[in-house]
Amino acid sequence: MNNIKFENNRLFILDQTKLPNQEIYLEMKSLEDCYNAIELLQVRGAPAIGIFAAYSLALFHENNIEKSKEYLDSARPTAVNLSWATQRILNAFRNGKNLIKEATAIQNEDIDMCRKISEYGLSLLKDNYGILTHCNAGELATSKYGTGLGPIILGNEKGYKFHVYSDETRPLLQGARLTSYELEKHGIDVTLICDSAASTVMKKGLIDAVLVGCDRVAANGDTANKIGTNTVAVLSKYYGIPFYVLGPYSTIDFSSPSGENIVIEERGANEIKSMYFENPTALSETKCYNPAFDITDNSLITAIITDKGIAYPPFEKSLKELYND
Amino acid sequence: MNNIKFENNRLFILDQTKLPNQEIYLEMKSLEDCYNAIELLQVRGAPAIGIFAAYSLALFHENNIEKSKEYLDSARPTAVNLSWATQRILNAFRNGKNLIKEATAIQNEDIDMCRKISEYGLSLLKDNYGILTHCNAGELATSKYGTGLGPIILGNEKGYKFHVYSDETRPLLQGARLTSYELEKHGIDVTLICDSAASTVMKKGLIDAVLVGCDRVAANGDTANKIGTNTVAVLSKYYGIPFYVLGPYSTIDFSSPSGENIVIEERGANEIKSMYFENPTALSETKCYNPAFDITDNSLITAIITDKGIAYPPFEKSLKELYND
Repeated sequence: MNNIKFENNRLFILDQTKLPNQEIYLEMKSLEDCYNAIELLQVRGAPAIGIFAAYSLALFHENNIEKSKEYLDSARPTAVNLSWATQRILNAFRNGKNLIKEATAIQNEDIDMCRKISEYGLSLLKDNYGILTHCNAGELATSKYGTGLGPIILGNEKGYKFHVYSDETRPLLQGARLTSYELEKHGIDVTLICDSAASTVMKKGLIDAVLVGCDRVAANGDTANKIGTNTVAVLSKYYGIPFYVLGPYSTIDFSSPSGENIVIEERGANEIKSMYFENPTALSETKCYNPAFDITDNSLITAIITDKGIAYPPFEKSLKELYND
Repeated sequence: MNNIKFENNRLFILDQTKLPNQEIYLEMKSLEDCYNAIELLQVRGAPAIGIFAAYSLALFHENNIEKSKEYLDSARPTAVNLSWATQRILNAFRNGKNLIKEATAIQNEDIDMCRKISEYGLSLLKDNYGILTHCNAGELATSKYGTGLGPIILGNEKGYKFHVYSDETRPLLQGARLTSYELEKHGIDVTLICDSAASTVMKKGLIDAVLVGCDRVAANGDTANKIGTNTVAVLSKYYGIPFYVLGPYSTIDFSSPSGENIVIEERGANEIKSMYFENPTALSETKCYNPAFDITDNSLITAIITDKGIAYPPFEKSLKELYND
C-alpha cells in the first residue's frame, strides 16, 4: 500500500483524505508539513501516525528537538502512539543514535507486530471464507497487513481466496473510502454493503467470520471500536458466526476493568448530516446523536487476536495469560 | 403535512425529492405533469401514490379515460396501489359517478385506515417512551398519520411526549430526509442517528419500543421492509425491546406462506457509492450488494398492527383471525 514512503532521505505520504478518488503522494518538506498532514488526517490510524511522526521528527527536528516534538505531538493530542513514537526519537537523539534508523525500527516493529496478528488470525480462517469487516483496520492505518484486515491481506499473499464484505461504516465511510479501496488494490474479492445490510449477508449464509480492529480493550475483553461494531457483534451472535477482534497487545487497557470505564467520544451532527454530501440530508434544527465508538460486550466476542497470541473467553484470565506466555 | 393538496379544483403536491432543504409545492396542470410526478418520485409511498393518481385521473383524464389510466399506471408499474386507485376512478366513470368525490373517498378511506392503525399502535405505547424507527412510514407516504409513524403522530396530537430516534436509513436516507423532517415539523422530539448506532441507543436504555412499516407480510408473519429492518429486529430481540410492524391489513399476502417466497429487489451500486454524495465514496470498479429490502423473521416480531387489530404470535393463526373478527 505504501501509505508512508521514505526514499533517498525524502518522506512522502499517500493523502488519505483524497482517497478513493485520487491517489496523491505528498512530499513533506518541513516539520510544519508533517504537523499539517497529521492534523488534516492525510495520514491516519494510530500505528501509521506513530511511524510517520517518527520519520517526521527524525528528518525535520529543528535546533530544539524537545520543542519540535511538542509541536508535532500537539497535532493530535489524543493519539497516544504519536507521543510514544516521538519520545523514542527524542531518546535516540539523547543517546546519540541515528534517528532515521530509529524511525525505521519503529516501522519494522509495527510490520512485525501486524504480521504476528495476521498469522494468528489466519490460523482461524479457511480458504474461500466469506468475511465481514467494519471500518478500516488495514495497511492504510498501519504500515503493512494491518490488524483487522491483516489475516485477509496475509492470506491473499499465501493464495487464500476470501470473499470480503465491507460495511461502508457511516458516518465517516471508512469501509467505503479506505477498506474497499485497499482490498481492491490488493486484488482481493470485496463487496461494499450498507451497514444495515450486514444482517442480510449473514442470513444468506455468505459470512463465515467477522474480523474487526479495536481502539481499546478492557481487562474483561469488552471492546471499544468504531460505532456499529457492537451491532455487527450482536448480529454475529444471533446468526452463529464467529466474531474476532484483532489488535496489538498494547491495546488492552488493564486499568479499565470493563467497558463501563471507557468514555465514548461524541462527535458533531455535521458528520451525519452534511459531511461528504452534496446537500444536507436533514434540517439544520434536527438533533443528531453521533457517538464515534461503541462498546462490544465480551459475551459477543469469540476470540481476541493479538501479536502475543489468541485469547478465548473468559478474557479476564486469558488476556493476562498471554502476557505471561 | 399536506403532501397532496386538492383545493378549488386544483391539485398540488409537495415535491419530496427536494426535501428537507426546500419545501416546494408543484401544481399539476396536465396528466403528463401527474405522470412525471410519480415517475420522478416527487410523490412516493404506496398509499400516497394511489390517492394522488386517483385525483390525477379524475381531474385530467382525456377523451379516452382507459388510455389515460393505462398511461398513468405505467409511471410506476410495480406500485399495485396505483392501478388499484385508478381502477376505482375508471369504475366510477363507467357508473356515471362524480370522479372527484371518488378520489376524495379514496383519500378519506386511507386516513381512516391509518387512524385505526395508529389507535391500535398507540394502545401499546406509554407517555415518555423512547421509540426507534427505520425508514419512513409516515404522513409523507400516506395522507395522514401514516403507518409506522402513525402512533407517534396520533400520540403527539393527544399530548403524549415521545422521544423518537430515527435511523438515517442508508442508502436512500429516508430516515434523515423524510422521517426526521416530518417529525420535526410536528414538533415531536426526534434525534437522527446512523443505522449503526441503533444498538448503542438500545444498550443505553433509551428505547422502549421499535415501530416500523412493512412492504409485504407473509402468511406466517415474516415481513419484507426496507433494508436494515431485520438488523433492527435482531437488535431488539437481543436487548429485550418490543418490535412492532405496522401496516394496512391489505399488506398481508396470504399467498406467500413465508418470507422465503418473497423476492427481494436488488438495486444499483450508484445508490451506495454516488447518490447524494459530492464525490464517489468508493472506486468505480468496487462491487456493491444493494438489496432494497430484507425479510424479518416472524420470531423477531412482537406484534403486527393493522387497521383490523393487533396480531400476536403465532401469526399464521392470528393474522387470519383478524380477518374473521
